[in-house]
Amino acid sequence: MTLAWRCLQKAPQRLFSTSSRRLEIRSITELPARVHPGFKETSDHDLLALKWPSPPRNILFVRKNADEAVHSALLEYTQHVKSNYPDSNLVLEPDVAEQIHETFDFPVYTLRNSSSYHEKVDLTTTLGGDGTILHAASLFATSASVPPVLSFSMGTLGFLGEWKFKDYKRAFRDVYVSGHPPPSTLVDGGSGPSSTSGWSNLRGKSMGAGRASRVLMRNRLRIGIFDSAGQRLPHEPPFAHPDNHSEDIFALNEVLLHRGANPHLAHITILLGSPGHQKVLTTAIADGFLVSTPTGSTAYSLSSGGCIVHPLVSSLLLTPICPRSLSFRPVVLPSNTPVTLRIEPTNRGKEIEVSVDGVRRQTGLTAGMEVRVVGEEVRTPGIKGERDWRGGVPSIVQGGGSGGAEDGWVGGLNGLLKFNYPFGEEG
Amino acid sequence: MTLAWRCLQKAPQRLFSTSSRRLEIRSITELPARVHPGFKETSDHDLLALKWPSPPRNILFVRKNADEAVHSALLEYTQHVKSNYPDSNLVLEPDVAEQIHETFDFPVYTLRNSSSYHEKVDLTTTLGGDGTILHAASLFATSASVPPVLSFSMGTLGFLGEWKFKDYKRAFRDVYVSGHPPPSTLVDGGSGPSSTSGWSNLRGKSMGAGRASRVLMRNRLRIGIFDSAGQRLPHEPPFAHPDNHSEDIFALNEVLLHRGANPHLAHITILLGSPGHQKVLTTAIADGFLVSTPTGSTAYSLSSGGCIVHPLVSSLLLTPICPRSLSFRPVVLPSNTPVTLRIEPTNRGKEIEVSVDGVRRQTGLTAGMEVRVVGEEVRTPGIKGERDWRGGVPSIVQGGGSGGAEDGWVGGLNGLLKFNYPFGEEG
Amino acid sequence: MTLAWRCLQKAPQRLFSTSSRRLEIRSITELPARVHPGFKETSDHDLLALKWPSPPRNILFVRKNADEAVHSALLEYTQHVKSNYPDSNLVLEPDVAEQIHETFDFPVYTLRNSSSYHEKVDLTTTLGGDGTILHAASLFATSASVPPVLSFSMGTLGFLGEWKFKDYKRAFRDVYVSGHPPPSTLVDGGSGPSSTSGWSNLRGKSMGAGRASRVLMRNRLRIGIFDSAGQRLPHEPPFAHPDNHSEDIFALNEVLLHRGANPHLAHITILLGSPGHQKVLTTAIADGFLVSTPTGSTAYSLSSGGCIVHPLVSSLLLTPICPRSLSFRPVVLPSNTPVTLRIEPTNRGKEIEVSVDGVRRQTGLTAGMEVRVVGEEVRTPGIKGERDWRGGVPSIVQGGGSGGAEDGWVGGLNGLLKFNYPFGEEG
Amino acid sequence: MTLAWRCLQKAPQRLFSTSSRRLEIRSITELPARVHPGFKETSDHDLLALKWPSPPRNILFVRKNADEAVHSALLEYTQHVKSNYPDSNLVLEPDVAEQIHETFDFPVYTLRNSSSYHEKVDLTTTLGGDGTILHAASLFATSASVPPVLSFSMGTLGFLGEWKFKDYKRAFRDVYVSGHPPPSTLVDGGSGPSSTSGWSNLRGKSMGAGRASRVLMRNRLRIGIFDSAGQRLPHEPPFAHPDNHSEDIFALNEVLLHRGANPHLAHITILLGSPGHQKVLTTAIADGFLVSTPTGSTAYSLSSGGCIVHPLVSSLLLTPICPRSLSFRPVVLPSNTPVTLRIEPTNRGKEIEVSVDGVRRQTGLTAGMEVRVVGEEVRTPGIKGERDWRGGVPSIVQGGGSGGAEDGWVGGLNGLLKFNYPFGEEG
Repeated sequence: MTLAWRCLQKAPQRLFSTSSRRLEIRSITELPARVHPGFKETSDHDLLALKWPSPPRNILFVRKNADEAVHSALLEYTQHVKSNYPDSNLVLEPDVAEQIHETFDFPVYTLRNSSSYHEKVDLTTTLGGDGTILHAASLFATSASVPPVLSFSMGTLGFLGEWKFKDYKRAFRDVYVSGHPPPSTLVDGGSGPSSTSGWSNLRGKSMGAGRASRVLMRNRLRIGIFDSAGQRLPHEPPFAHPDNHSEDIFALNEVLLHRGANPHLAHITILLGSPGHQKVLTTAIADGFLVSTPTGSTAYSLSSGGCIVHPLVSSLLLTPICPRSLSFRPVVLPSNTPVTLRIEPTNRGKEIEVSVDGVRRQTGLTAGMEVRVVGEEVRTPGIKGERDWRGGVPSIVQGGGSGGAEDGWVGGLNGLLKFNYPFGEEG
Repeated sequence: MTLAWRCLQKAPQRLFSTSSRRLEIRSITELPARVHPGFKETSDHDLLALKWPSPPRNILFVRKNADEAVHSALLEYTQHVKSNYPDSNLVLEPDVAEQIHETFDFPVYTLRNSSSYHEKVDLTTTLGGDGTILHAASLFATSASVPPVLSFSMGTLGFLGEWKFKDYKRAFRDVYVSGHPPPSTLVDGGSGPSSTSGWSNLRGKSMGAGRASRVLMRNRLRIGIFDSAGQRLPHEPPFAHPDNHSEDIFALNEVLLHRGANPHLAHITILLGSPGHQKVLTTAIADGFLVSTPTGSTAYSLSSGGCIVHPLVSSLLLTPICPRSLSFRPVVLPSNTPVTLRIEPTNRGKEIEVSVDGVRRQTGLTAGMEVRVVGEEVRTPGIKGERDWRGGVPSIVQGGGSGGAEDGWVGGLNGLLKFNYPFGEEG
Repeated sequence: MTLAWRCLQKAPQRLFSTSSRRLEIRSITELPARVHPGFKETSDHDLLALKWPSPPRNILFVRKNADEAVHSALLEYTQHVKSNYPDSNLVLEPDVAEQIHETFDFPVYTLRNSSSYHEKVDLTTTLGGDGTILHAASLFATSASVPPVLSFSMGTLGFLGEWKFKDYKRAFRDVYVSGHPPPSTLVDGGSGPSSTSGWSNLRGKSMGAGRASRVLMRNRLRIGIFDSAGQRLPHEPPFAHPDNHSEDIFALNEVLLHRGANPHLAHITILLGSPGHQKVLTTAIADGFLVSTPTGSTAYSLSSGGCIVHPLVSSLLLTPICPRSLSFRPVVLPSNTPVTLRIEPTNRGKEIEVSVDGVRRQTGLTAGMEVRVVGEEVRTPGIKGERDWRGGVPSIVQGGGSGGAEDGWVGGLNGLLKFNYPFGEEG
Repeated sequence: MTLAWRCLQKAPQRLFSTSSRRLEIRSITELPARVHPGFKETSDHDLLALKWPSPPRNILFVRKNADEAVHSALLEYTQHVKSNYPDSNLVLEPDVAEQIHETFDFPVYTLRNSSSYHEKVDLTTTLGGDGTILHAASLFATSASVPPVLSFSMGTLGFLGEWKFKDYKRAFRDVYVSGHPPPSTLVDGGSGPSSTSGWSNLRGKSMGAGRASRVLMRNRLRIGIFDSAGQRLPHEPPFAHPDNHSEDIFALNEVLLHRGANPHLAHITILLGSPGHQKVLTTAIADGFLVSTPTGSTAYSLSSGGCIVHPLVSSLLLTPICPRSLSFRPVVLPSNTPVTLRIEPTNRGKEIEVSVDGVRRQTGLTAGMEVRVVGEEVRTPGIKGERDWRGGVPSIVQGGGSGGAEDGWVGGLNGLLKFNYPFGEEG
């Protein structure tokens, strides 16, 4: 890979000197094409090694709303990235872009009408808690391919594996250079706006090619909603957009059916198997019903009595919410099991609410409608290589160890969830 | 497939006329080498298709003890098999062989000193309930390769997917011919002990090559016990035998640590990860602790509050038994996670009992000793083909459908476990 | 007590001959004063014996809505009662009275503006299921004194101890005569429309004074709602009415706080003890929180993981709904423990819904507001006699036996809830 | 209260000067008769006020075994009591008496052959944890009347409401003077072992008659074991002794039936009601079965999934241990419900272990045998006064407040059990 040193000298100048370009909010459609990383299996554990073919350029920054400290951190963080990785382009959500673009002397990019993040964003980085990560993932809820997510916590660490914000410089650098071979000729650099110019700017920052960032690939659910005639229903905001109105959407945690404000219990039949080969598992008469990913096993499903499932167990969790039965034990199925949740006629015209990752669909479901769920495929079947990963949310985790216990999950279980907290004297 | 009537006439005569062979109990070492079947993945669901390279010959019959009806059924079943599949050899457990060999006019085979079932048995078939299947699996507890198991129930069906005994003729025939290519020259079919002669004997029994038996491959646990210095402890009866005293044993359901008659709670630390990279998950202070397979999720783990996990979810279940904590939720881990259960010094010299699939080890464990568990690998990594399956208990199930729901599991959940049993009027 | 035999001959005539009185709906204020029964403790078990000082006259019939069979049964039942107990007055809910009064040739009574059922109703009888009983109890939600309830089921029996409708004649008769001493001089009866005339009409119906109906006294919750300044908030429909807008209301099953359609978890602090002596039990971060009676232990609390508590255990149940904690075990407190549920400021302005026995209050609660709950006192302290019972819902049950197991509760547990339903073969 | 200094000068001299009495271990039969305290209900909460008719004299000290710190504390504590309350007599368990009597210059008393603690002991005080309290209660397991228990913890506080040892002087003094009216003639106070002399010795120690110690009356279970012919089986050590071999024994926490080392599940039928009026609740097929008091709800029952029940809820808890059912929810019954646990014939000759408060009976139970349990009556029915309390374990608690929350129970729930422990950042 050739370098582009000269380009590196000019690029920042171009950005900083052109005052007419300041304060600008541009459409992400103007950005260069997305860089898709590879994910390499490692012999010693279940985490993947992140490998960029060229440095990430289009960086989406997502922040928690209505939090002053988070906002300040975002300013510091974005300034640092733009200063030290001048080829990078800052992508922000429209409202955030509106709020802060005037503080920058370089343009920021945001979503415009017909564009979508997944066409352009190379890397997402979040400031906030688990809710912010969920929100960031929801921005890719209609995309089968999600860029890696590097998440920082301002206060209390969440369970989705964030980093502490104080480590943001090192963490970003490590992700930026992850899996890239060391440049052979740093000084005489390259000559064009090549996709690799970013690396050469990192004077001494790299720790070598072997030090790849660790990725926990979190599987999602694929969800479709169908009417009683089997016709797919269009998605509604916030998930809908023009180019994929008839496709599945993806959930990182869970899909929830709930009776909502309806005083009567929901009647939901759960069927397993592909259409034509379905078997009725059971009919839940309950406040609601959850299909969760293992990642979601420590979210709503946990509160409803579900097991804790490690995110690398390829599975779906079926968890009832307050079922009218003494014998409705939570169930864990293979990830590739098609699960259909059918609204029973016995709901008598009442709408059943459906929510994806905590966001409720505006229109509820009525008798005969179905929510069809299956775990997404995260690899192209039959091919085994770095580039065959095509699903999941690639989450950058701190673990660099081995043996399946180095992904921060054990720490979160004990530190956050107070798992098996010992009895003892009042502290 | 055409028939070979002539062959059928001769084969029984040859066997029945040799009076010197009657009443005999022979060693299984005299039997021909084991026939290893292949397991073919199917496009439409998760069950495998059983493919014999040549018909199974050495058939191990395992029956429930102390049950007259089961004993009668065994006599009927074995006579049928020997009459209709004259090339087959009957293998019995020593005590059963002793009891019934005189009723046969052909020899039976059994285990002698230094032999082991897994070297010879092509197919195991059981008469009894889930306990009998567990026992049959335990006969291969020291073998990484288990022959297919065809299990029949006399009365109440169990959860491990047995067939009803009244269907034994059809069920045995289907397994016998499963996946075999139609013989090219049927009429002149061989009359000797060729590996294919068995098939030609089947008058109209086969439903064609495409009709393969469905196999649910049940993963097991690999279990080793180590002293406080890290030295592997030899296995004790009933698992020990000469050639594998220092190897792991396998469990179909679970390994259990329990305080037994000790009035004090057991203190057991659970560590995850390979030696050198372990992380402490937690220390259980409890009556006991279970590591279960998904198959075992409907056994002891269920009684202890564990989730129901489909047998095809590649996972390990950690379930405490009566823990002294309000917050010890059951945990599901990837099958390949090394789990270590370490006896804490705080047990103060008391022995902790260890049981595998319900059979207790004679000697308990003391402080510092470890039980190391991991899910067995069921495929040779990197190779994908019919013959690369090398672990698991291949269980013949009735399902011939598709979509992940055709394995009888849903039926067992509802019919046997009374899962989500609806409220209603007193029957 | 004197009898009124002659009067009995005339009374029906008087009613049936006055055609001008037909089709009439009158106000219950016109009815004679309520007859309060006594409840006698029995030596051998925990059920009480119902003792009328004089026969019940004002009978409230409550029926399930929108069910044709129930409606027909109501007609048959009311005609039977009026024909055989001519002194009885039929009380109906306004909408029911409107629907069916034309089918009668005698007046019916219903609630008018400023009246209330508890001032007049001697006995309530219901046709429907558990929901109908709950509704009937809610008609007395602002009264400390509830008349006995005789409940019939049309189809599936509920858990609240209903009778089968086919037994209505015998059941009503038994309740009607319960605890009354046998008349000494039947023939020369009394002379006016005395309150006791009803008994003499029962030719051969009585089984003697010793055969009293069995009453299970179901305790309720007393509930008050207060603003953040400690001021009591008025009750809203359907519970409010003029004369008790500032008093507590009573719940037979439970009071529920729930986040409703709010996507954020509710933050509710539970305090125990009287104002000034309160201790914080905990802060629930959950979908909702329940305080239930033992009667309610088999309702919503059961679905949320609560224990099953016999209705005669004088207690309150605290059960969280989907709490964000691994260690929130349901709690059972003495019935007389004052429990305060305080809406935390961390709910950030969102309203928390409050429901009593499944009926939601129109206006939700905001930060600082409190729901204060305590079990009602069912006896006047210090006095022990038949007339000192002043609270609870006196439910007529079938049990006539002894030993604490004759109240139908065990049957409901097994027959309806499928408690400890045994594993077994698919039916 | 005025002091009686003179008395104080003499009393110790009398004791200390008689060297012939030193080092002596005497039988408790030599002690004066037991002083039974009264328990007065208070208007504001559920704790009782302890009222001694005369000061306690015979003090039983029970200590945890095999703990050096506890032993030292015992020496300090006993010396303090004997010095400051010279009329008091020290009672010790035989082995403890043997160990330490030589360090005293006054005699100690212990149990001899045919004597029993409950005939002599006025007050029990314990040094250790919950286990020590349980042990102390077990010394009165055959007595319907248990003296008050004042318990101190050396290290971690337990859940049974102990005091910290550092407060022992004040705590003992408060209990000693609790509820006694001020002596009318203090100056001429008696110098002999009169029943009131003890009070006059307390220089300024009393806080007045109104300051009574608070007692939480913990109900126990009454337990009898019967053979299949309905004949009562004698109790075995450690519970048996001459004068009560055929009576019930009492448990503070629970009675447990368990399969023990038997690999087969126990089959136990639970019947409710008095003999002749019993109803079958269910048949438990399980590892074991518990009947617990509310006090025991935070012991074994908690580990088995039972609810937390406040000790003042008059109830029995039925909790299965690892039942083979999805629908065996824990049950709470009125305390006066007779519960029979019957060993089923399906246990096929295997013994079922029975344990009371953690102590296993030497001989197990076989088919047809029954354990009959009921909550003890703690008041003489019909009489309401200070002296009518005749059952329960009177536990001295710290709460002096009101409102039902002042008994330390809430603190224990949160501080010890980590009830509803909030999620949060790793400490």
